[in-house]
Amino acid sequence: MDAPALWQRYQDWLYYHQGLDFYLDVSRMRFDHAFVEAMRPKFEKAFQDMEALERGAIANPDENRMVGHYWLRDPDIAPTPELRQDILTVLEKIESFTTKVHSGDIHPPGSSKFTDILSIGIGGSALGPEFVADALAPNVPPLAIHFIDNTDPAGIDATIAKLQDRLANTLVLIISKSGGTPETRNGMIEAKKAYESQKLDFAAHAVAITGEDSNLEQLAKSEGWLATFPMYDWVGGRTSEMSAVGLLPAALQGIDIRQMLAGAKEMDSATRIHNLHENPAALLALSWYFSGNGQGEKDMVVLPYKDSLLLFSRYLQQLVMESLGKEKDLDGNTVHQGIAVYGNKGSTDQHAYVQQLREGVPNFFVTFIEVLRDREGHSPQVEAGVTSGDYLSGLLQGTRKALYDNQRDSITVTIPQVNPRTVGALIALYDRAVGLYASLVNINAYHQPGVEAGKKAASAILDLQKRVIQVLQDQGEPMSLSQLAQKAGATDQIEAIYKILRHLHTNQRGVVLEGKLGEPSSLKVSAV
Amino acid sequence: MDAPALWQRYQDWLYYHQGLDFYLDVSRMRFDHAFVEAMRPKFEKAFQDMEALERGAIANPDENRMVGHYWLRDPDIAPTPELRQDILTVLEKIESFTTKVHSGDIHPPGSSKFTDILSIGIGGSALGPEFVADALAPNVPPLAIHFIDNTDPAGIDATIAKLQDRLANTLVLIISKSGGTPETRNGMIEAKKAYESQKLDFAAHAVAITGEDSNLEQLAKSEGWLATFPMYDWVGGRTSEMSAVGLLPAALQGIDIRQMLAGAKEMDSATRIHNLHENPAALLALSWYFSGNGQGEKDMVVLPYKDSLLLFSRYLQQLVMESLGKEKDLDGNTVHQGIAVYGNKGSTDQHAYVQQLREGVPNFFVTFIEVLRDREGHSPQVEAGVTSGDYLSGLLQGTRKALYDNQRDSITVTIPQVNPRTVGALIALYDRAVGLYASLVNINAYHQPGVEAGKKAASAILDLQKRVIQVLQDQGEPMSLSQLAQKAGATDQIEAIYKILRHLHTNQRGVVLEGKLGEPSSLKVSAV
Repeated sequence: MDAPALWQRYQDWLYYHQGLDFYLDVSRMRFDHAFVEAMRPKFEKAFQDMEALERGAIANPDENRMVGHYWLRDPDIAPTPELRQDILTVLEKIESFTTKVHSGDIHPPGSSKFTDILSIGIGGSALGPEFVADALAPNVPPLAIHFIDNTDPAGIDATIAKLQDRLANTLVLIISKSGGTPETRNGMIEAKKAYESQKLDFAAHAVAITGEDSNLEQLAKSEGWLATFPMYDWVGGRTSEMSAVGLLPAALQGIDIRQMLAGAKEMDSATRIHNLHENPAALLALSWYFSGNGQGEKDMVVLPYKDSLLLFSRYLQQLVMESLGKEKDLDGNTVHQGIAVYGNKGSTDQHAYVQQLREGVPNFFVTFIEVLRDREGHSPQVEAGVTSGDYLSGLLQGTRKALYDNQRDSITVTIPQVNPRTVGALIALYDRAVGLYASLVNINAYHQPGVEAGKKAASAILDLQKRVIQVLQDQGEPMSLSQLAQKAGATDQIEAIYKILRHLHTNQRGVVLEGKLGEPSSLKVSAV
Repeated sequence: MDAPALWQRYQDWLYYHQGLDFYLDVSRMRFDHAFVEAMRPKFEKAFQDMEALERGAIANPDENRMVGHYWLRDPDIAPTPELRQDILTVLEKIESFTTKVHSGDIHPPGSSKFTDILSIGIGGSALGPEFVADALAPNVPPLAIHFIDNTDPAGIDATIAKLQDRLANTLVLIISKSGGTPETRNGMIEAKKAYESQKLDFAAHAVAITGEDSNLEQLAKSEGWLATFPMYDWVGGRTSEMSAVGLLPAALQGIDIRQMLAGAKEMDSATRIHNLHENPAALLALSWYFSGNGQGEKDMVVLPYKDSLLLFSRYLQQLVMESLGKEKDLDGNTVHQGIAVYGNKGSTDQHAYVQQLREGVPNFFVTFIEVLRDREGHSPQVEAGVTSGDYLSGLLQGTRKALYDNQRDSITVTIPQVNPRTVGALIALYDRAVGLYASLVNINAYHQPGVEAGKKAASAILDLQKRVIQVLQDQGEPMSLSQLAQKAGATDQIEAIYKILRHLHTNQRGVVLEGKLGEPSSLKVSAV
């Protein structure tokens, strides 16, 4: 395509939203007119599916649930007055709690104010809050946030160590819908021990964000925690940033959550339009479908040219891959859908893997995220007439061009600056694009059946560990692995037993391994 | 494969290194005997290539350079006594400088000790130090490190703001081989301004790590910086962690760099063995080749089950993708090689994209990284007989099994704990695996020609910006974009000009746009 034709294509496809000062450019995705026309009927259906979803249809049939994260941004569209009122009440409760924490009306037993937050949650209960904290927290926030988002003992220790001398002023958020997520429960138990070891009353520092009547809610009530905020069964973890899960920590850090909600609401309106050309989420879904042939044949590389958006790619990795990565379609056909997502930030990544993007395996498309505003205030010149931000901007344009010239497609999203409104809009944009794409490929974007398999297998390993320890304790003599497996009734699981023992042995948990560690058949095992 | 056969396969392929207490398991990669036999001649050549490289051959022919990062770990194998002595001298200089900084013999003008490090570098001059700091820095390091690894003005501001009241005690490392990397130069200029705005002498806080006779070295000498450390042309950025680039910041943070070097040296020895079965790097390269059919058809998902190894996947992303992502092979054939790498950490990612890994597009293989030691000290029970670490371990085993049961292959690397020795060994393992794989697919792993294209295109954009500003300043009347493009002699680049103007306009840089921002043809532009 020659330069005038490409410039025309750019103008023809450029999407601009005046209220949000938001641009989307899909001109560097090489779809043609025929492809767009062929996709129109699919989009008509996707728009209708989305309308039904917003009206309260059971859009997550496997779990028999409504999908209501759009209502959080615009309670007036909630399908019942009760749901609307619930959303408004929780929002007010978040704001009133936050005001009291900031003013010191709610304070820890031993001092006048909370200074820090320890947020304990995983997956959808961590990625949104982590992304938003990184993107939006002020340099000196009213409360500084720290995360435990795993069941890694050393990781828990590192976080607690950082907070050691401020634990007395640290507000703990425990975030789990079921209250039974083991990683979160483990983090809570260990955090509680840290409080107790300093003779601090954990309950006087703790807040639960959890489903109604969950174990966690019951625990919080029985122990008299500071507060409890709800998680709804109609909001999935990966779309929960605009529920209490995301709003409470954001508000506590001094982030304007009303602006975040307003930006999302405005984008939600823009992405409700039944017109491919005038709906930015539809343009994204169209581009994804084109690039990967509707089967995820290309990876989505996300490159925000702004340090504070570094975690956006990880946020999208969850949103896109957990929503779209499905074995079955809605009719039960085996489809193995999904789109792999990765990325960090530009132009830093230009000095890392962009070499491969430019020259190597052409198994991806790029999404550039451009932020027009360089910084608050004036920029110094780094050479005559040129600023650091000019370089960042030039490197984005240059990389986009170098990729395009080598037949690598890209999308460019442009926002005026990183603030609560634009971050809300970005979240909403991708929520909708994922929902529309799921309709295009006929899958349920709102469940995660594959996660269960790993959990079940893990739970089987923990059961096996208990049996193994029991056998060892009952038995006096050292045994071979196969003898032990037989006695534990698990002859098919010698490898799992070997790994359990290696782990227990290393951590001095009452198991002794003798023989050559790298030769399992040589090992004799006994209890200490 | 039934359970006994799988257990046999596990034992047959299990690699164990006693000195490092290091395991590698490739039994869940579904290659067969015939594949391994067919690969043997390729590996024989790869081993020979690697020997030649270590002896000082021009292993990077495009840049006519030796490839010497292995010598850093074992100076005795450097090809000349001068190189050997150079390496030892620099190492001693790093240690002596570090000792003096820690003791206060080297201190900032206004106080007795440096408390913080501001490291300014990008790509290979940032990712290694960032990974190692995250993995190994003690909770209370002698100096705490902060990074500027981009030319994002807001990102620079955020880092400087964090250091604002400690800038007087902050040691600045400027890391750039050529001294001309614009992102790093921009960071340096802005950092310098921050020092000057506090009336601090930048030179008295600054250290250069750079190539001999580079602009940066000359600047450092002429301004009398605290010290200068060398970067060699025979060490590429992505393999420079064991040069001054990585060792100086590590040592300053109190990390035992001799142990890091020793671990790498021990792994280097282990990966020199001319036997596929007994060489862990060869086993990795074999697995990669098998999985992606020698053409990168599958992505490498890296899942360390340990918070402190979170950045290892990003480190590997650069190492693997920049090394292997090449258009041409060594004979000039167009091959578009590479392996895409992404990942964060387990089990956190199990609540994110593992849904797709388990059920969705089967376009990947996983590398699990297992750490046997849970934490320093004793673990509390989270339920009867079970610890947080048991969960982490069980979740790893469970996820591996759930993936394997669904035809998704994986590799498992096991280390006893995260310490300087094992981190050194991991870095060395992957250095070698990448080198061997490059031989298998006949490419130069040590250059990055594709990075230039983006840089050149960026530089063209900055030139265009200067011309555009000149035209605007010369011209009184508002112009359309096409008029402006014509006057700037760039009628083929109206889109680039539009973007330049949008950026300048947003940042109040003397440009006024009138009309509808989303309709470029409606715009009139003038200088303020």
